Amino acid sequence: MTPSVPKTTRTIVLANPPIGEVQADTFKLEEWPLAELKDGEVLLKMLAFGNEPAQRCWMDGNTDPRRLYVEPVKQGDAVRAFGIGEILVSKSDKWEVGQRVTGVFVWQEYLVVNEGGINGEAAVIPGMSEWIWLGIFGLNGLTAWAGATKECNLKPEHTVLVSGAAGAVGSVFVQIAKKVIGCKKVVGVAGGREKCDWVKSLGADDCVDYKSKSFKKDLQAALPDYADVFFDLAGGKVLDVALTVVARHGFISQCGALDIYNGKPLELTNYREVIYNRLTIKGFIIIDHMGSIAEATGDLGKWVQEGKISFTGGETVVDTKFEDVPKTWQMLFSGATRGKLITKLV
Amino acid sequence: MTPSVPKTTRTIVLANPPIGEVQADTFKLEEWPLAELKDGEVLLKMLAFGNEPAQRCWMDGNTDPRRLYVEPVKQGDAVRAFGIGEILVSKSDKWEVGQRVTGVFVWQEYLVVNEGGINGEAAVIPGMSEWIWLGIFGLNGLTAWAGATKECNLKPEHTVLVSGAAGAVGSVFVQIAKKVIGCKKVVGVAGGREKCDWVKSLGADDCVDYKSKSFKKDLQAALPDYADVFFDLAGGKVLDVALTVVARHGFISQCGALDIYNGKPLELTNYREVIYNRLTIKGFIIIDHMGSIAEATGDLGKWVQEGKISFTGGETVVDTKFEDVPKTWQMLFSGATRGKLITKLV
Repeated sequence: MTPSVPKTTRTIVLANPPIGEVQADTFKLEEWPLAELKDGEVLLKMLAFGNEPAQRCWMDGNTDPRRLYVEPVKQGDAVRAFGIGEILVSKSDKWEVGQRVTGVFVWQEYLVVNEGGINGEAAVIPGMSEWIWLGIFGLNGLTAWAGATKECNLKPEHTVLVSGAAGAVGSVFVQIAKKVIGCKKVVGVAGGREKCDWVKSLGADDCVDYKSKSFKKDLQAALPDYADVFFDLAGGKVLDVALTVVARHGFISQCGALDIYNGKPLELTNYREVIYNRLTIKGFIIIDHMGSIAEATGDLGKWVQEGKISFTGGETVVDTKFEDVPKTWQMLFSGATRGKLITKLV
Repeated sequence: MTPSVPKTTRTIVLANPPIGEVQADTFKLEEWPLAELKDGEVLLKMLAFGNEPAQRCWMDGNTDPRRLYVEPVKQGDAVRAFGIGEILVSKSDKWEVGQRVTGVFVWQEYLVVNEGGINGEAAVIPGMSEWIWLGIFGLNGLTAWAGATKECNLKPEHTVLVSGAAGAVGSVFVQIAKKVIGCKKVVGVAGGREKCDWVKSLGADDCVDYKSKSFKKDLQAALPDYADVFFDLAGGKVLDVALTVVARHGFISQCGALDIYNGKPLELTNYREVIYNRLTIKGFIIIDHMGSIAEATGDLGKWVQEGKISFTGGETVVDTKFEDVPKTWQMLFSGATRGKLITKLV
């Protein structure tokens, strides 16, 4: 190893698993030693992290681990995150110094990982964002793909409602629904006029602003004949109001519930609609579709190439000092970002 | 017509469709004229009414009629109810004076109905309650049958949770699950020790008291390996807690939600379980299974005859003066009654 190779790394540690809102003492910055590389391992310098609402779930202080779908991030652990790193040193036959790779990593500046922990190369593709592997070509794209084609089983005759439509998953889902499957009508829900305009520019027939005081009226006006399918990433008030516009025997794919990840209870004034109109709500986690990665990747690549899915404007890249990584992640919950929120380390 | 045939009838009218709890001015007693019988019609003297939580939904003052599954009961209407009446006069070729019939009627002492509005004869069967047509052999039995065999698709390998287990539908569902289908484990939820003991006497392996302060702990202890299927008639807190004990990829049939029919919002602190464990919640109204009435009736009759389903203790019959019909109905929401609540007119 050359002298320029670091022996330690700054690490964001989960100091106090949050119950409710994330607090000032939830995370702690520590300096951790880096182990010597063993055969099959590489040393990464992290370039960027993808930000997921689900990370809040993984670190929750009030969740029975048996009921979670992944290993929880526990007190004292480095915080788990999707990321892209550049290989500084390689003791792997598969990977070379200088290659960029993506995977489920942690909030560290430098990281020793086994080649088995690398999901794939994160090559820079001309004309595309260098972080696309954290978005459309990452788990978010796969989620939108499986949500549209498998969970919701979208057909051209469907009227479709999508919440979080300006988010990383929702914005891809909207495009698949409208431009690939050709759904009769696609209505998005997003926060604010600017985001709604962007969602419409992606192909949505309409987009309703949940921050507006007339949200319920607006949503009902946008869907006079109701929605056959509702792809929900929001939970909360949006879900409650949406229950009044899902058609009889309609289907709700509960892909996310950003509104309640911080521990807030879900208050539904319209839950009786589930009974009256025999709605189905089905929880959806992408890990049930990991066997379809090859199919999804093929489809998404083709659709991007054919211009059916655009990633223009679908990324919010925030230059971030390492110690501010949690701050950038928390922007997810402010509703201020559009498309994929990328933490670019500077 | 003989002089003894009434020309008018006392009628319970929906004076003010309720929003929230039923109030003193929700109903009004009126004297209505009875029309002369036309061909095909009969005059009934009502003997009893069945009481359904769903009646609260039909008369709600805050429900968009397009979103309801039946015609709403509107301001000024006689209140719709299942009932059994005796034929006083018949101008129908199908029905004779003295026969007892059942159907969807209204809260009147006397009633003129067309033969098409009669569901069937409500004959008194030796050894059985004369009101069984309002319970096991009525829509409640059909609901339990379709819930168990069609919606929940119960199998012997299933562990099953049933709320409202001491109610008219739940108590039949428990027996079908355990004694007909032979489910591995059947756990009921009911209010109070006495009701829980009764549910266990019906065959449930366990029954948990939702009124107990240790309800959550008790339910989790009763289902250490979770429930594959949850048949929910309660909604509210019971549903919220139950979300923590439904197994990964488990199924919740939302047959009722007594707790919210009076307009109370549903507060769920555990909704994230729907996502984490990819639960399915499906609303269920028996009208989707009306094509199966013959099959259900055949099955239920056979199971009763074979002793697999008992109706002993499964009825709370309340002698009621006509003007007190709404009072007896409201006992449903107090949780004080067991099995089918029957209003017997005296």
